[in-house]
Amino acid sequence: MTKDGQKVYQHGTLALLVPGLFDGTMKLAELLAHGDTGIGTATGLNGEMIVLDGTPYLVQANGQVKTLSAETMIPFATVHFDQPQVEFAAQGLSMQALGKQILAKYPYHNIFFAVKIVGKFKHMQTRAVEGQVKPYPTLVEVANKQAVFEEADSQGTVVGYFAPELFQGMAAAGYHLHYLNNAKKMGGHILGFEIDQAQVYLQPFATIEQHLPVDNQEFMEHQADLESMGQQIKSAEEAD
Amino acid sequence: MTKDGQKVYQHGTLALLVPGLFDGTMKLAELLAHGDTGIGTATGLNGEMIVLDGTPYLVQANGQVKTLSAETMIPFATVHFDQPQVEFAAQGLSMQALGKQILAKYPYHNIFFAVKIVGKFKHMQTRAVEGQVKPYPTLVEVANKQAVFEEADSQGTVVGYFAPELFQGMAAAGYHLHYLNNAKKMGGHILGFEIDQAQVYLQPFATIEQHLPVDNQEFMEHQADLESMGQQIKSAEEAD
Repeated sequence: MTKDGQKVYQHGTLALLVPGLFDGTMKLAELLAHGDTGIGTATGLNGEMIVLDGTPYLVQANGQVKTLSAETMIPFATVHFDQPQVEFAAQGLSMQALGKQILAKYPYHNIFFAVKIVGKFKHMQTRAVEGQVKPYPTLVEVANKQAVFEEADSQGTVVGYFAPELFQGMAAAGYHLHYLNNAKKMGGHILGFEIDQAQVYLQPFATIEQHLPVDNQEFMEHQADLESMGQQIKSAEEAD
Repeated sequence: MTKDGQKVYQHGTLALLVPGLFDGTMKLAELLAHGDTGIGTATGLNGEMIVLDGTPYLVQANGQVKTLSAETMIPFATVHFDQPQVEFAAQGLSMQALGKQILAKYPYHNIFFAVKIVGKFKHMQTRAVEGQVKPYPTLVEVANKQAVFEEADSQGTVVGYFAPELFQGMAAAGYHLHYLNNAKKMGGHILGFEIDQAQVYLQPFATIEQHLPVDNQEFMEHQADLESMGQQIKSAEEAD
């Protein structure tokens, strides 16, 4: 069910976005050498990125969607080469119900896996954070300054990851999903959805390649407050 | 100071040794394709492994040191290709003093780096845990059943890693060092040392490649008790 050669690649860590390290530290051209599918954010936390078939799209807080150039610097992103191992049809499921169903059916709770959902949603609710300028606020403060978008009968693609609790800090434990509709007009970090008819694709990973921005002085010198970080990650991810 | 291409490779995670998942899940031959230098343990937690110049040695609880065959299965190990970026001479330093000095001098506290120390030690104290059979006890219980070895005026090599606090669980935060003397007769997991004269080599990593035993059913189905895990890791690492 799993293919040992498959890996997921992450640049940056969520734990360093939390205190406000939002500067871009890797060129998209370099990131996309490690995958054609994934999610992330842009410098200044300026919107929500989704990578589909090698094209990076950014959903901005003003609701507009644009493609990003290969020269764009990003602070945090996760990508992989899309080669699903599991596929099934889903109908009438909420995001929560689908997430639980996956973990009940597949023994994936201790590993990273990618989720892709292609189809029609009765309802899709997303958010996009507003671009920030230095001095950057914390992730929790930014998550409270966001635009929320909704679309009924939306057709599009969900891409994202499940991270096991063992790796909380490196990534957000649990599901982290982004969306882009087929018209490329609406999307973002998903707050909730209800599937009408869709195909769900899962891709478990044996290997996680974690890349850190070792040439970024601010990252290298940062003193993390780990005591409160877990709670802050939870709070920022759940903000709506 | 850092070279972006360099990576450290880890098979298994410390967080899964803690509750007693000690079965070997990767062949040494496969592990050593990812590095010629490193540390680890054997199936059943049967001793302390150190890899020097591509040769894996196991220090057993009976004090004997043996080389391991390429077919040996191991549950947890970390390796890299030895290409130090920093080198300095050290005299008269304890393990604690050296550890602090490194972090005071180099901005490495948020990244993984390898430590190699080659030279003469006024005093070296190590431990090796006893091999366990199923049903395996927890790591804390095993750490309390160990042999302690001491050698004065010991000449040999220290190999190990520093893991940042951000990655506690995946690895033990802080330093984790193993030792083998030049005679290949004494070594193990280091409890303490005092350097007489030695060269210290550091190798920072931009990339951490974390491999999980996705074909091991026990790992895949394990329900981790994360509440107490951090404390248990600390307790097991500090046992003496």
